Amino acid sequence: MKFVIQRDALVQSVGDVMKAVTSRTTIPILTGIKIIANDEGVTLTGSDSDISIESFIPKEEEGNEIVEVTENGGIVLQAKFFSEIVKKLPMDTVEIEVQNHLQTVIRSGKAEFNLNGLDPEEYPHLPQIEEGNALKVPTDLLKTMIRQTVFAVSTSETRPILTGVNWKVEDGELSCIATDSHRLAMRKAALENDNGKEYNIVIPGKSLTELSKILDDNSDPVEIVITDNQVLFKAKHLLFFSRLLEGNYPDTSRLIPNESKTELTLATKEFLQAIDRASLLAREGRNNVVKLSTIDNGLIEISSNTPEIGKVIEQVQSQSVDGEELKISFSAKYMMDALKALEGTEIHVNFTGAMRPFVIKPLHDDSILQLILPVRTY
Amino acid sequence: MKFVIQRDALVQSVGDVMKAVTSRTTIPILTGIKIIANDEGVTLTGSDSDISIESFIPKEEEGNEIVEVTENGGIVLQAKFFSEIVKKLPMDTVEIEVQNHLQTVIRSGKAEFNLNGLDPEEYPHLPQIEEGNALKVPTDLLKTMIRQTVFAVSTSETRPILTGVNWKVEDGELSCIATDSHRLAMRKAALENDNGKEYNIVIPGKSLTELSKILDDNSDPVEIVITDNQVLFKAKHLLFFSRLLEGNYPDTSRLIPNESKTELTLATKEFLQAIDRASLLAREGRNNVVKLSTIDNGLIEISSNTPEIGKVIEQVQSQSVDGEELKISFSAKYMMDALKALEGTEIHVNFTGAMRPFVIKPLHDDSILQLILPVRTY
Repeated sequence: MKFVIQRDALVQSVGDVMKAVTSRTTIPILTGIKIIANDEGVTLTGSDSDISIESFIPKEEEGNEIVEVTENGGIVLQAKFFSEIVKKLPMDTVEIEVQNHLQTVIRSGKAEFNLNGLDPEEYPHLPQIEEGNALKVPTDLLKTMIRQTVFAVSTSETRPILTGVNWKVEDGELSCIATDSHRLAMRKAALENDNGKEYNIVIPGKSLTELSKILDDNSDPVEIVITDNQVLFKAKHLLFFSRLLEGNYPDTSRLIPNESKTELTLATKEFLQAIDRASLLAREGRNNVVKLSTIDNGLIEISSNTPEIGKVIEQVQSQSVDGEELKISFSAKYMMDALKALEGTEIHVNFTGAMRPFVIKPLHDDSILQLILPVRTY
Repeated sequence: MKFVIQRDALVQSVGDVMKAVTSRTTIPILTGIKIIANDEGVTLTGSDSDISIESFIPKEEEGNEIVEVTENGGIVLQAKFFSEIVKKLPMDTVEIEVQNHLQTVIRSGKAEFNLNGLDPEEYPHLPQIEEGNALKVPTDLLKTMIRQTVFAVSTSETRPILTGVNWKVEDGELSCIATDSHRLAMRKAALENDNGKEYNIVIPGKSLTELSKILDDNSDPVEIVITDNQVLFKAKHLLFFSRLLEGNYPDTSRLIPNESKTELTLATKEFLQAIDRASLLAREGRNNVVKLSTIDNGLIEISSNTPEIGKVIEQVQSQSVDGEELKISFSAKYMMDALKALEGTEIHVNFTGAMRPFVIKPLHDDSILQLILPVRTY
């Protein structure tokens, strides 16, 4: 293998596949990045066996030569060193050449690195996925849907299925649901190209977080191919594979109340900041709980009390309070997470009693919903 | 105590005194910030008993009212909570009022915090320092002198005196020296107001690092008052006290070689980047050692070799190589620290043999010097 490549393109591509590489792996070769050079260009692969990322650097793009391959071939190089080296090379171009015994030379200007490589034949094969029947979602919408749900997955391995996000495709609509059994986040969107198939899969939260990081901010479509145990996201020059979680995701539709006994309409930012302030003292306590009470004239009161430190109380003017009076306690963190995930300057909060889950939604938008279980304190 | 204060001024001042506060203290009241309000304004104090910082917020500045004190008095509030609270208050002004039993109310807009305070009478007194005989150093020069020396202090408590920087005043000149016994950094500057006294003190490296963080970047003079066991730095509205280290600092003047057997003249940035690249593979090894060899035609070679990973070799074109041929090994980290501390685009490196300390200096500038002990590998 021998090629000369634009350093910036290589740095970008190495950065992308590095997202899948971990030093905590039981398969030593997975601490490396696989590099394959052929007539079309150079392909890099990183994997931790749950997530695999393949990034392709074409020979040329928009008339600019990016790679010149003079000898086809492949190598696996230690990801940690290779990624540091390419970032610090002195010149705009890099020559990479595999010599005898997998010894690999990286040259740039007057700097020359010799790295001990590994045999690319020993690198695990990526899942083989039939590429028909792809769903298409614009990149920016996909990133938004991930951001609005993935924070609510469980971080505990007690119920592994809850560490993933439940993706359902039905009637031309994609819905993403995450819950850690204390709160739930849901986001729906219509698919542009419904292929008539139904899907119900659970994608590890970590996979979605990493995917979100390497996708550019644009509206180009990402193709999504779902199989029994894998999902493949295809973007420009990028393949992102994730295994799926096995098991049945709980039916969450029954959790979401349809009725409402108290409805608040609030300015999102003002409410978020008041919760943030109230939580300053509550964080020290066991569970970061704040209280919300309706008082007269559309005012609500946010408060918390940690006897050894002090207490905080703040009135927030709502746009409207409809229905019954209410006193309720909840996790300030869950509320802040939910409010940050919502778009829109105003929200509805619908309560059905102090001990029942409540729902937060933007005004005039049914595509997103956040649900929080209260905490028993009153 | 009761006053209304501009939030921004309070946030700035709290941020400054927080630099001295640590949660790891055996004196519980030192986890707090002392607040004293009187006819002149408000004074905040933070301390970990090694470092004490006092920040004064005047009643008014440049015609703008900053504080309105309606009742003189004082309180000590938990630093961790107080600093978080003031940052997140909703309005531009804050009212702080001590009520019964040290209960303190912090009000801003519709938000109201109640914090349990402590008695300011129980807060330790700051050192009393006679303010005559102050040295004066411009703030920016002081910060530069700290930056150029403090990184070389020892981080090990084996010889506690080496965790400080040796400040000597003699013949109208201030010299700062730090060494961890493997390398040494020295910086000198002429004092504008020599008071004829001589000093030889050791200031804890940590104190100087914190001092540097809270000083603004300007050329206003900082007054420095030195006593037997304390040093006081006075800047605008700010007092910074540090205890001194006890014991005799080693005489470092004999360490610095006067002769030179090989002298290199190099472009600082190019040399630094080559060392950085060579160290990428060396970091994994025990001691991050790189080798430097002179070769023909003013070329030098930087290299490192970690057999299990690989090796790197790079040629650097020097401006000149004078004297004997040389092969020498040294810590890449120490060399990079030294090069970053130097100003100027070109440097001299003076060697007196592969096993003797060598000296790095900017061209045409004797006020700063970095010395490194080589590592035996050849």
